[in-house]
Amino acid sequence: MTTRSTPPADPAEARRLFREGLVTPTAGWAPGFTQANTIIVPSEYAYEVLLFSQRNPRPCPVLDVSDAGSPRTVLAPDADLRTDFPAYRIWRDGELAEETADIRDHWRDDLVTFLIGCSFTFETPLLAAGIEVRHITAGTNVPMYRTSVECRPAGRIHGPLVVSMRPIPADRVAEAVRISGRFPSVHGAPVHIGDPAGLGITDLGTPDFGDPVEIRPGEVPVFWACGVTPQAAIMASRPPFAITHAPGHMFITDVPDARYAV
Amino acid sequence: MTTRSTPPADPAEARRLFREGLVTPTAGWAPGFTQANTIIVPSEYAYEVLLFSQRNPRPCPVLDVSDAGSPRTVLAPDADLRTDFPAYRIWRDGELAEETADIRDHWRDDLVTFLIGCSFTFETPLLAAGIEVRHITAGTNVPMYRTSVECRPAGRIHGPLVVSMRPIPADRVAEAVRISGRFPSVHGAPVHIGDPAGLGITDLGTPDFGDPVEIRPGEVPVFWACGVTPQAAIMASRPPFAITHAPGHMFITDVPDARYAV
Repeated sequence: MTTRSTPPADPAEARRLFREGLVTPTAGWAPGFTQANTIIVPSEYAYEVLLFSQRNPRPCPVLDVSDAGSPRTVLAPDADLRTDFPAYRIWRDGELAEETADIRDHWRDDLVTFLIGCSFTFETPLLAAGIEVRHITAGTNVPMYRTSVECRPAGRIHGPLVVSMRPIPADRVAEAVRISGRFPSVHGAPVHIGDPAGLGITDLGTPDFGDPVEIRPGEVPVFWACGVTPQAAIMASRPPFAITHAPGHMFITDVPDARYAV
Repeated sequence: MTTRSTPPADPAEARRLFREGLVTPTAGWAPGFTQANTIIVPSEYAYEVLLFSQRNPRPCPVLDVSDAGSPRTVLAPDADLRTDFPAYRIWRDGELAEETADIRDHWRDDLVTFLIGCSFTFETPLLAAGIEVRHITAGTNVPMYRTSVECRPAGRIHGPLVVSMRPIPADRVAEAVRISGRFPSVHGAPVHIGDPAGLGITDLGTPDFGDPVEIRPGEVPVFWACGVTPQAAIMASRPPFAITHAPGHMFITDVPDARYAV
């Protein structure tokens, strides 16, 4: 793992750094370009994963699906999906088997890659509106929580809704809703505002993925559907083999965020 | 076929009439409730149809996918998808084999039903804004055209983009864009405004599906992606067996249009 102080603004440059081995959460990287979650499964599971995504579009907004065996995507034609994420997770029977920065040794001709929208897309317009995004300020990964809300299942694929959380001052919450709601294909408006118990979350200080953030007096925890949901579905559904990104360690596409604004 | 002068406002009542044999285009029926196109294919084609829809979300916004063999949908839990459309088309090897009001005799345990958003959803808010929808005024089916724009293929499924057309006064076009753009999951904003030649359409007076409408001086032809696109894909891709709705003869769901507004 190498480290680097200033994230680049260019998606291709970011991908080059990841291809060369840099491992880092990507919040705040290449601002204005869409980042994507991923889930990679053998083709015999592809229909159920795609159907799960269709049935749960808020946590799983599919931006692209590659043909079986192809490490290419229309979202970044020069990219190699096997090397250009900062970090991947290898799953066997629903258990985390390995975390790696390169999946070429795990690649198979029957693997289908799903790229799924990421809430980072609406963080740029939140910041532009003067709404602080705490985990970017702190330089940490966004906090993510497994909830007690079950997604609508699809065949063998099932699992809980995962949410990301951002503390927002009470008088800016409506604006944060309005801004993120303009991006329905990258999670859109929040799924829940306020009391975490309503989602079955008992302690905001111990997220299931990512890092905790400070919630200051006068701030409300605001929860958005999260692209880590397919990863939680892998853990719950236990297919023999799957690959995901490491939470917060996204694929940076060549697509401007504005493409997904309504 | 029976006839009836006043369309009912209630979706369940509309479906009951269709179940009993009424055959009619559904524009203007049960205003405020979402109508859906359909494509029904054997499960061995389901992944490619779902992927085709994901890759072409503007013409093919999927609202629900039924489990194989099930004639049920979450969009209208009491409905039977085999009887509750006013008219269906049976396709064999890409050729129209039959048009029928009831597909129970054609039903198979491996059939997967896709319900796809319909531009009728944004006609209600267009009318509410005082924008005339010509084919509703005329009491005819919306005009639809096969274009020279190819959809992004998915495996064996490919075909051209189909559009619906509404003539709009030049000074209301921007408003029509804004209103329909609020409904991205039911085709959203127009794909093309003005000169039909840009879509490869040579004569607006002879639509490929539906009925022609008058275009008055000062009006611009405005084109929206159309849910008949999967039907054109069936004609182009020639799977051994498929069922669709008859163009303009939609499934009326229990879901308020407002659910799909951004």
